[in-house]
Amino acid sequence: MEVTRKNFKESLNAIYSAIEEADFLAIDGEFSGISDGPSVSSLTNGLDTPEERYQKLKKHSMDFLLFQFGLCTFKYDQSASEYLTKSFNFYIFPKPFSRNSPDIKFVCQSSSIDFLANQGFDFNKVFCNGIPYLNQEEESQLREQFEERRSQSNGSQSFISPSSCKGPINVPDEQKDFVNKVVVSAFLNNALSCSFQRKLIYQTLNWNCHIFCLIFTALQKLLSWLFQKERYILISKVDDDERKRREQEKQEKEQGELNDAVGFSRVIHAVSKSGKLVIGHNMLLDVMHTIHQFYCPLPQELIDFKEVTMCVFPRLLDTKLMASTQPFKELITNTSLAELEKQLKESPFKPLKVESAEGFPRYDTATEQLHEAGYDAYITGLCFISMANYLGTFLTPPRAHISARSKLIEPFFNKLYLMRIIDIPYLNISGPDLQPKRDHVLYVTFPKEWKTSDLYQLFSAFGNIQVSWIDDTSAFVCLSQTDQVQIAVNTSRYAESYRIQTYAEYMENRQDKQTCRRWTESGWTKSPYSTSPAVSSYGYSNNKTPAERRNMSPIQEEQASDGMEEPEDDGDAPGSARPQPEAPAAAATQGKSRKHKRKAQGELPPYGQPLSPSRVQAALSI
Amino acid sequence: MEVTRKNFKESLNAIYSAIEEADFLAIDGEFSGISDGPSVSSLTNGLDTPEERYQKLKKHSMDFLLFQFGLCTFKYDQSASEYLTKSFNFYIFPKPFSRNSPDIKFVCQSSSIDFLANQGFDFNKVFCNGIPYLNQEEESQLREQFEERRSQSNGSQSFISPSSCKGPINVPDEQKDFVNKVVVSAFLNNALSCSFQRKLIYQTLNWNCHIFCLIFTALQKLLSWLFQKERYILISKVDDDERKRREQEKQEKEQGELNDAVGFSRVIHAVSKSGKLVIGHNMLLDVMHTIHQFYCPLPQELIDFKEVTMCVFPRLLDTKLMASTQPFKELITNTSLAELEKQLKESPFKPLKVESAEGFPRYDTATEQLHEAGYDAYITGLCFISMANYLGTFLTPPRAHISARSKLIEPFFNKLYLMRIIDIPYLNISGPDLQPKRDHVLYVTFPKEWKTSDLYQLFSAFGNIQVSWIDDTSAFVCLSQTDQVQIAVNTSRYAESYRIQTYAEYMENRQDKQTCRRWTESGWTKSPYSTSPAVSSYGYSNNKTPAERRNMSPIQEEQASDGMEEPEDDGDAPGSARPQPEAPAAAATQGKSRKHKRKAQGELPPYGQPLSPSRVQAALSI
Repeated sequence: MEVTRKNFKESLNAIYSAIEEADFLAIDGEFSGISDGPSVSSLTNGLDTPEERYQKLKKHSMDFLLFQFGLCTFKYDQSASEYLTKSFNFYIFPKPFSRNSPDIKFVCQSSSIDFLANQGFDFNKVFCNGIPYLNQEEESQLREQFEERRSQSNGSQSFISPSSCKGPINVPDEQKDFVNKVVVSAFLNNALSCSFQRKLIYQTLNWNCHIFCLIFTALQKLLSWLFQKERYILISKVDDDERKRREQEKQEKEQGELNDAVGFSRVIHAVSKSGKLVIGHNMLLDVMHTIHQFYCPLPQELIDFKEVTMCVFPRLLDTKLMASTQPFKELITNTSLAELEKQLKESPFKPLKVESAEGFPRYDTATEQLHEAGYDAYITGLCFISMANYLGTFLTPPRAHISARSKLIEPFFNKLYLMRIIDIPYLNISGPDLQPKRDHVLYVTFPKEWKTSDLYQLFSAFGNIQVSWIDDTSAFVCLSQTDQVQIAVNTSRYAESYRIQTYAEYMENRQDKQTCRRWTESGWTKSPYSTSPAVSSYGYSNNKTPAERRNMSPIQEEQASDGMEEPEDDGDAPGSARPQPEAPAAAATQGKSRKHKRKAQGELPPYGQPLSPSRVQAALSI
Repeated sequence: MEVTRKNFKESLNAIYSAIEEADFLAIDGEFSGISDGPSVSSLTNGLDTPEERYQKLKKHSMDFLLFQFGLCTFKYDQSASEYLTKSFNFYIFPKPFSRNSPDIKFVCQSSSIDFLANQGFDFNKVFCNGIPYLNQEEESQLREQFEERRSQSNGSQSFISPSSCKGPINVPDEQKDFVNKVVVSAFLNNALSCSFQRKLIYQTLNWNCHIFCLIFTALQKLLSWLFQKERYILISKVDDDERKRREQEKQEKEQGELNDAVGFSRVIHAVSKSGKLVIGHNMLLDVMHTIHQFYCPLPQELIDFKEVTMCVFPRLLDTKLMASTQPFKELITNTSLAELEKQLKESPFKPLKVESAEGFPRYDTATEQLHEAGYDAYITGLCFISMANYLGTFLTPPRAHISARSKLIEPFFNKLYLMRIIDIPYLNISGPDLQPKRDHVLYVTFPKEWKTSDLYQLFSAFGNIQVSWIDDTSAFVCLSQTDQVQIAVNTSRYAESYRIQTYAEYMENRQDKQTCRRWTESGWTKSPYSTSPAVSSYGYSNNKTPAERRNMSPIQEEQASDGMEEPEDDGDAPGSARPQPEAPAAAATQGKSRKHKRKAQGELPPYGQPLSPSRVQAALSI
């Protein structure tokens, strides 16, 4: 169901009840851009720490607008053994609701806009009919103003708002008689008797606009003086019932306006309050944007972001992470959403029984509508069901249907896929992150003329290496043998053009330890999932030893992704923004961009094999 | 005529000939936003210097996208005594033309987007079918790459591009025989005989992607070595005619791709090369955006911006400035484009004979299509014709038609309207700017709690004052009597909470003198227009003495604009972005935004009377 500003109000009850009755929810967002930094590759270093990645995404991605939000609810019908889905595709735009409302500026990235345009995205629906929204602070400000006005008018009708007086002004019953004696004439006499105000009013007698401004100042001062002395003013007095009726009408109208302004945020609040499992595909950016846009500016520190996320979405599941983990990683060669959906239609996965609920249009996965957020949310949900049901085949006796409440899927809760980090597959939202040893990693600085090939040459004596560019003059180099690290560092001691440090030295310099210590203090050091029986049964086992993995060259790992024909655009990284391996002929003619391209190649992670043995070890050892 | 990416190429000849045959051109731009600063009022202080205003616009307005460009050409048909118009409405979008092209990020301001959406603006046309463009630097980079490739292939077919070799590689005739002897096998043998490269290739034998990258490095090194020794390589040799044919085909294709990428910039280049008079309404932002987007990033200094502008647009005319100047300012109460167009249909202005050229759709001014750039350009041209013809009534004998080449309009050339500056009506593009004395102006700093009313109170002994807010803790205060300035400064000497400086002291501290000195050095101190007979005949006369003006209170001046019902949205300042005087009731209930609103009111200039007597004096005295 398409939801714009035009049908939002009338659709709200349907949305609320869909969320209420659902077994789980799937979401997806479309954004006006991905990275306002120099390039996506600078956003994703293969050896980022989770903290670094969070900071980069926060800095370079939050100025874009989440302008389409897909929500698909899934309800299991036991009797028919099928899922009923209700899919909503929301268009979102921060239309200023009044002259005082914030005038939001957002960035658009032409590659992302062009990508969406090619997918038939309807920008007019966003900009002309997008549903407005407020974050929590904007909402409370508006609510406060509304409460203030209500309290002020409650008991004292037609009162000129003394906006300099903080808090509501309630006239106590025992004071009302006294208040009634104070009338407008006395009030104005009072005002005029004050020579300062009289002079001001006299001066400005012919002034058209400023006169109001000045009289208000005078009135304010007088009012605050009166209030200090516990005196109260009623300028006009109307029939009590009539007054109450008018008041109620006005309040209802204002409450309506407030709700309209909160707009789409109400949907997110409902999702949050439901506490239901929320599924997404490669969903870190979706979660960050959702919190940033509808709750609050993202916290400075990753640990605080995790806390906020757990408040907003107590249970998350990322299908890209699930598909990249045992037992699925052996079965799935390409984890991009569209490819994953296709592969999950084949054996050993079972066909699904999923129907659109009455009154909801049916999505046809044969005629793809990729990158419409509602459709992407729908197929994300399908992927989850396929994979969850597959886990049921491991049980004795096997079960065909695995519910969203099953213990079997708990190991995947609150772990969000981390794009292109070599040895940390996910961000652990409800606990500390994996801390892989990285004792085979070197931090190398060099002149800005250096290319990847120079690094390969420098380390040619050390066997296969893997290069992750940080910026123009530095990179991480992973050696295949940890015991060679010290040799490399020692060898470089007298080098003039470059400098080599161990990863530990590098981290020490960055003083990143503070964040780690915070984890310990808050008692999150013990993973809630490490002892889960589900983990050992299928979750984190791997046949390759770390040594075997380290003997793979980066290119061997890259080959694993060669079958991938499309760029891996999971809705959060559309189109040309993502560097792709290029054909040699193109590389030869595009000399100017060669260096950049090589960097991008150098840091591409092994697609389809994000869980390396060393990572799994780390996961099991926590 | 609507022009998008789809019909751009086929329309180009029509556009070129329309520009070529025109007597003058009118332009207008629509942007994705106006100010990314905190508010428009912070962008426009009533006592900005032209330098300050330029810096502010450059800093806070250039990240927006000019995404619709209107061009209307006007050709006078002597025999029919009528103008023939050709109007073009271009949709513009920086679609990346290849994977290496710049990925432009631009900002959208929700109030501006909402404003355009309400006007029926078609965002899909912009984002899906917008015409691409390049600025000068991007174009030359692309052209250079293209030339490089052409030179490389010229004479040496199928050559692997040695991208590290700068400049074209031409094989001299006398060397060709020698070159022909060097064949691929020898070449590769050579490469492999070099142990360094062999080792590299060996190491990477199983690597799928990096092998190319590495072989290229090896080849490059070898090639540069060969070239140093004046040896040349031809890998394959084909029939000469066939080679030339292929080469030409390839070059034509590349030239076509280059032209496609330059896209809309070609239209602006044609306008520029024509040297024709270019008319706009309140056109400073249009000119800045046009130069920024299609030529080069705006220069740091205003004086350099003026120089660039004169190169791109040698003759400009701003109808808002024209309408705000004698003799029109007495006749025109509201200079916003839509109102101006209406007023110029009434007496004493004469009806126009204007027809759309064959094949061009006719705009009907009765059914307004305001804020479609093509329409706005069209009525801007109409306004110019009406006002120009009116000047003809001053001649003896009077003339009904005044051409775009007439001396009568020259005084208006290259003066761009400056929004809301009290005493400098325009930016003088082809000369030094007016330097009004401002010896009645004080610079006041105070605690951030102060409001406009506090300043009125502070200066209550000094008669009428005018306040122009700079930021939260400072403002300019204009006194009515210059001789009171020193009294005010002296009085404040022992004040603790605030501080008063003369304008001269303030400017001295800001060390703005450097820029002024540059003007003198470049010999622009003498205005080319001050002695123009046209000026004294009708241009800059005024009945009010400076003293009379100074006795006007700011509110009296503001009243002059009360007749203005619409916000003054000239296409460059749409919607709610512009502060408007607010009704007193609203002010009373909107306590939170009161301070800001007052500031906005305080700095509103006298609409419809931008040329104050003091300014005219200044204009005449230069």
